[in-house]
Amino acid sequence: METPAQDTAHMARAVELAAHGRGGTSPNPVVGCVILDAHHDVAGEGFHARAGGPHAEIVALRQAGERARGGTAYVTLEPCDHTGRTGPCSQALLAAGVGRVVIAVADPNPEAAGGAARLRAHGVTVETGVLAEQAEQVNAEWLTFARLGRPHVTWKYAATLDGRSAAADGTSQWITSPEARADVHRLRARSDAIVAGIGTVLADDPRLTARTPGLPERPILRVVVDSAARTPPAARVLDGAAPTLVAIADGTRTDLKADLLRLPRHDDGLDLRRLLAELAARDVVSVFLEGGPTLAGSFLRQGLVDRVVAYVAPALLGSGAAALGDAGVRTIAGAHRFAFDDVSAIGPDLRLIARPAPAPRREK
Amino acid sequence: METPAQDTAHMARAVELAAHGRGGTSPNPVVGCVILDAHHDVAGEGFHARAGGPHAEIVALRQAGERARGGTAYVTLEPCDHTGRTGPCSQALLAAGVGRVVIAVADPNPEAAGGAARLRAHGVTVETGVLAEQAEQVNAEWLTFARLGRPHVTWKYAATLDGRSAAADGTSQWITSPEARADVHRLRARSDAIVAGIGTVLADDPRLTARTPGLPERPILRVVVDSAARTPPAARVLDGAAPTLVAIADGTRTDLKADLLRLPRHDDGLDLRRLLAELAARDVVSVFLEGGPTLAGSFLRQGLVDRVVAYVAPALLGSGAAALGDAGVRTIAGAHRFAFDDVSAIGPDLRLIARPAPAPRREK
Repeated sequence: METPAQDTAHMARAVELAAHGRGGTSPNPVVGCVILDAHHDVAGEGFHARAGGPHAEIVALRQAGERARGGTAYVTLEPCDHTGRTGPCSQALLAAGVGRVVIAVADPNPEAAGGAARLRAHGVTVETGVLAEQAEQVNAEWLTFARLGRPHVTWKYAATLDGRSAAADGTSQWITSPEARADVHRLRARSDAIVAGIGTVLADDPRLTARTPGLPERPILRVVVDSAARTPPAARVLDGAAPTLVAIADGTRTDLKADLLRLPRHDDGLDLRRLLAELAARDVVSVFLEGGPTLAGSFLRQGLVDRVVAYVAPALLGSGAAALGDAGVRTIAGAHRFAFDDVSAIGPDLRLIARPAPAPRREK
Repeated sequence: METPAQDTAHMARAVELAAHGRGGTSPNPVVGCVILDAHHDVAGEGFHARAGGPHAEIVALRQAGERARGGTAYVTLEPCDHTGRTGPCSQALLAAGVGRVVIAVADPNPEAAGGAARLRAHGVTVETGVLAEQAEQVNAEWLTFARLGRPHVTWKYAATLDGRSAAADGTSQWITSPEARADVHRLRARSDAIVAGIGTVLADDPRLTARTPGLPERPILRVVVDSAARTPPAARVLDGAAPTLVAIADGTRTDLKADLLRLPRHDDGLDLRRLLAELAARDVVSVFLEGGPTLAGSFLRQGLVDRVVAYVAPALLGSGAAALGDAGVRTIAGAHRFAFDDVSAIGPDLRLIARPAPAPRREK
């Protein structure tokens, strides 16, 4: 049997492999797999690259061939036990004669789960929880989708050091650098839907497409949250370059020629949980929320932000529109608390990534 | 003669040595020195630790003794040529028989400059500009003081990711972590004066002292910018723990028992250039500006911020007081632009350090 250090190292590689699938597998998870032979040598590697394509385990088993017999498989997510577009991976691992399966994260999807149990029932040694945090992270979008039945929401904004997204006269182009804007396109390209509020559409007339040199322009669903149906018919977001959904309030009259989604009202906007449920029903696993400040505040108020990506420019304005509007916080104890996951220099700017955190230790 | 790579390595060490003096040498610069013998081996090291104490060159020469003869000296700042509380370092280097002197930054102080010229006149090989940027950085406070005749100003603030320093109801304790607050005390302890506005004094009643376990509490000058002389007699800033200066507007009547500094008005506040000139006359080389938003905006408007230290908490508020008030910016092209120098994790928070930058490349 492998040592715990070997387990960690091979699972780290499996997580790395899983990451190669990011942006391509929706509505499936990203999964990575490493197969060792009976001598603890790597015999096969694989990752899930796109829905409908072979699962990570199948790719790695094919590569390993007969060497998998008596060997060990490292999988970032519990092998599936159901027959979807491909056969169950649990069966494939059994058929290949793998003796030990190490799993990072259990499958929360009741349809697909049961792989570990089936393997155990057939005498395979199964261990779970190895490098679980890293495997959770690489698969955060899909795990949120599978556990909560709604898409994972990343709120992205760009602001100055003092949290402004425009100057007093409304000018804002460009607060952040070309490098930061290129990075935004890379992150958009990994998402299934890009969501913006009507304020942003009216102010900036954005295209909301992912333009990444070298990557095919995947038609990502564009969603405008627009209770009163004020989207101009000539708005770029309706240009046909990608599908677009305009979410309006129940009972709003409009002759807008667009794919309309009628939603109940909530507070002073739309019911965003309902919006996300509708998106989940359309197989949207990950949402890239591009504000503006009002819509971002509504998502925060309704507890629907799973990740914050902030591009911070080394500049100070002292006045102008704030990056975030009313988020339902009245007193400091009610602040929306996060933890920093990553800090990167992107050109002259910083990109800060944070995720919701339980209230950290604070003096009272 | 040493190779350029050796020059860089030894000067890097000299910069490291200079940094040991930070916070102790005011109103003198920090300086580091490395002496090599004729065989290119390190024979002595030194730094300037406190005004009145020996200069870096003297410390290093003492350690090197006879080995300095025919050797090389690396100095982060041009050796002084005047007799202050200690003899001129140029003379000491000549007397020790040093054959080559490598200097990072020329001395901008006309009284002390001339060291390089004197050394050259006596046949010593002198080179300047080696690792100049690093040597500038470590000595930024004093170089600003020497070049501009005013103290170097560091503006420090703490805010949420969205740039708020208090919640809507005014609560703000504590936005940042205990670790961040301890770090603030370390930075205060390196400064000659701590400056706050009357708004901050009235709202938070701060002590404005540097409390750093293990370090003696150096009596750092406290300055309240208080045009209308509203500082309450019982304010903690007047507690006698350190000297305090209250800057008020010319013509303001008050019976406040405090050391008053009367200054002309400027815009809607005081003439901050005059304030800094008065502080320079008191040998204040570095100012730690602790806001609040109004005073910080005035310093920025008057072009008097040399460094920004931002403690950013991973939290979002969406409302409440902004960290920065009106800074005289109306349109995005007029934003105060900086460049990030350093990003550090301080407990759960981030500390971002930036300094003024020429407008960077931006798309128009």
